[in-house]
Amino acid sequence: MKYPLSISRLIEELIKLPGIGPRSAERIVFHLLKTPLQECTRLSEAIAEVKKKIHHCSVCYSVAEADPCPVCSDPGRDPRTLCVVERPADMMAVEKSGGYRGLYHVLMGKIAPLDGVGPDSLRIEELVRRVRKGGVDEVIIATGSDVEGEATALYLARVLKPLPAKVTRIAHGIPMGSSLDFSDGVTITRALDGRAPM
Amino acid sequence: MKYPLSISRLIEELIKLPGIGPRSAERIVFHLLKTPLQECTRLSEAIAEVKKKIHHCSVCYSVAEADPCPVCSDPGRDPRTLCVVERPADMMAVEKSGGYRGLYHVLMGKIAPLDGVGPDSLRIEELVRRVRKGGVDEVIIATGSDVEGEATALYLARVLKPLPAKVTRIAHGIPMGSSLDFSDGVTITRALDGRAPM
Repeated sequence: MKYPLSISRLIEELIKLPGIGPRSAERIVFHLLKTPLQECTRLSEAIAEVKKKIHHCSVCYSVAEADPCPVCSDPGRDPRTLCVVERPADMMAVEKSGGYRGLYHVLMGKIAPLDGVGPDSLRIEELVRRVRKGGVDEVIIATGSDVEGEATALYLARVLKPLPAKVTRIAHGIPMGSSLDFSDGVTITRALDGRAPM
Repeated sequence: MKYPLSISRLIEELIKLPGIGPRSAERIVFHLLKTPLQECTRLSEAIAEVKKKIHHCSVCYSVAEADPCPVCSDPGRDPRTLCVVERPADMMAVEKSGGYRGLYHVLMGKIAPLDGVGPDSLRIEELVRRVRKGGVDEVIIATGSDVEGEATALYLARVLKPLPAKVTRIAHGIPMGSSLDFSDGVTITRALDGRAPM
């Protein structure tokens, strides 16, 4: 005996989501079975609403309900600085830090040839066009510090080089509040290389 | 700047699901944003279908589209043996093993006073009534081997004692294919206590 058809079908749909395997899908199904119908409907409606309302900002390619997004259309932000991030979630992380007042450019991924993601699949051409248009003094590359993020940063530095804007990379080093003996060797090496006068 | 309202709302709904925290909810949202609308609709429809079609079997309390469920209505199964499990997923696990031809009784949980689950919240009264009606020779208690599962087993053994059916507990010991030095002390003690002549 197997699960009833409708349960198998829901499990099948759930395991397509990232981070959800067959066991967690099962748990979610039994949770939904216990949940009042109204709550389940709220979940479905929330999915539908996100699909209907959320679009990519035509300036920075982040996700937003408005176009341009609230950051791009905020007159209080400094348009001469662009921070290049991989995904909207990274942009949200920088925003939460509260330490940045410039604008963003969201690549929507990182160069990962093994996953079939080349520069053409990302919003790199749009970034180059945006910088070439002028008015940008500095492009801060804030892609991840993993292999693909670093490769993407190097690629961006190369394509942006002919343009008049200064290209910088966010600093890598010991995280705040952490101590040296909790840091791995690569991080310590980067922290030493990136040392600054004080 | 925070996420657009519709994204925050979907994240809020997703973190209500078991095993999904704020970070995995974010990942799921961005996955859904990339997914074609049709696929997202399929997920919502699958949820709605499960809520509409799945009911508890009025005999064993497992989940099924039909009532009684396919196991309870199978004339080839032995109605004199009942296997008592905590959840429908446990019943599926026993079914997958292929080693059991009797019927089931699904408690829909285990006694867990700290979570507010007492015997009355489970299908224990229904089990007693089912056994009292007669025709059951043996009740195999197959609740989990954690503290709550064991407590539930002891409670069941006590309430079933006055009835004419034999009450047994599934064996606990070294899992097949495993060796002693991978087993914890409690399991080895149970395996020694449960030793059988050969």
